[in-house]
Amino acid sequence: MSKFAASFLAVLVAMPASAQFRKPEDAVKYRQSVMYVMGTSFYARIGAMVNGRIPYDAKLAQDHADVVVAMSRLPWPAFTPDTNGVGRTDAKPQLWDELPKFNELREKMQAEVLKLQAASRTGDIDALRAAYRATGAACKGCHDAFTNQ
Amino acid sequence: MSKFAASFLAVLVAMPASAQFRKPEDAVKYRQSVMYVMGTSFYARIGAMVNGRIPYDAKLAQDHADVVVAMSRLPWPAFTPDTNGVGRTDAKPQLWDELPKFNELREKMQAEVLKLQAASRTGDIDALRAAYRATGAACKGCHDAFTNQ
Repeated sequence: MSKFAASFLAVLVAMPASAQFRKPEDAVKYRQSVMYVMGTSFYARIGAMVNGRIPYDAKLAQDHADVVVAMSRLPWPAFTPDTNGVGRTDAKPQLWDELPKFNELREKMQAEVLKLQAASRTGDIDALRAAYRATGAACKGCHDAFTNQ
Repeated sequence: MSKFAASFLAVLVAMPASAQFRKPEDAVKYRQSVMYVMGTSFYARIGAMVNGRIPYDAKLAQDHADVVVAMSRLPWPAFTPDTNGVGRTDAKPQLWDELPKFNELREKMQAEVLKLQAASRTGDIDALRAAYRATGAACKGCHDAFTNQ
């Protein structure tokens, strides 16, 4: 067995069935990994296209929009209060006191990325750009409210 | 604009259109993020089900198999020789001299995860377990050959 695999299997041995992550550090690493993958597809791939820095490629835009949608569904079980101040998290402490607002902003983002995905299917870069900007505003809304980034 | 967004936009300003990542550190961070997301779904979610540590949930298995498949497509542009020894990479230096073997193992893994995805649709945990083990062996083959993990 590789150490890579073993690091995950150690999680399984230690955690109760109800917990998604063995320790808060793992949850922080997971959600940050998800965000980095999402941010790369969103800002550095789709963003580069709609801002004219790389050529528009409709298939590539679809693929990256699909990645963004897939990632938008993942990080939420990793936002647990026991991660407050853990590791290199940028989450502000007040996040845990304002979960209804956090969830509202999350749902807003998830709605926007579905529109981004739909726009990526139109083959129309102007539609993609509009959806990109609306999605970016939704991302920013939550990051401004709840992170130090 | 959030600093999170700005970190990706800085990439776009600095990189030539042909490059996928501004600097090797970003490529390493990206591929490690992808692997962590993939490993969590594979080992700590599907693995937990097929090994009886959490209840089998066919829908959840499908969702995580979809994440594994999506992740299996992503990290390859981030494996570039200029990342040799960069950051906290676990990739062995000989990877860059043995790219045909690396690509063969990559294709093997990608074939296995598609079988895992198909098995997740059967609702049969025994089929899922068999595909999980075959996929794990494919992961291990590449990690043993080319990483220090």
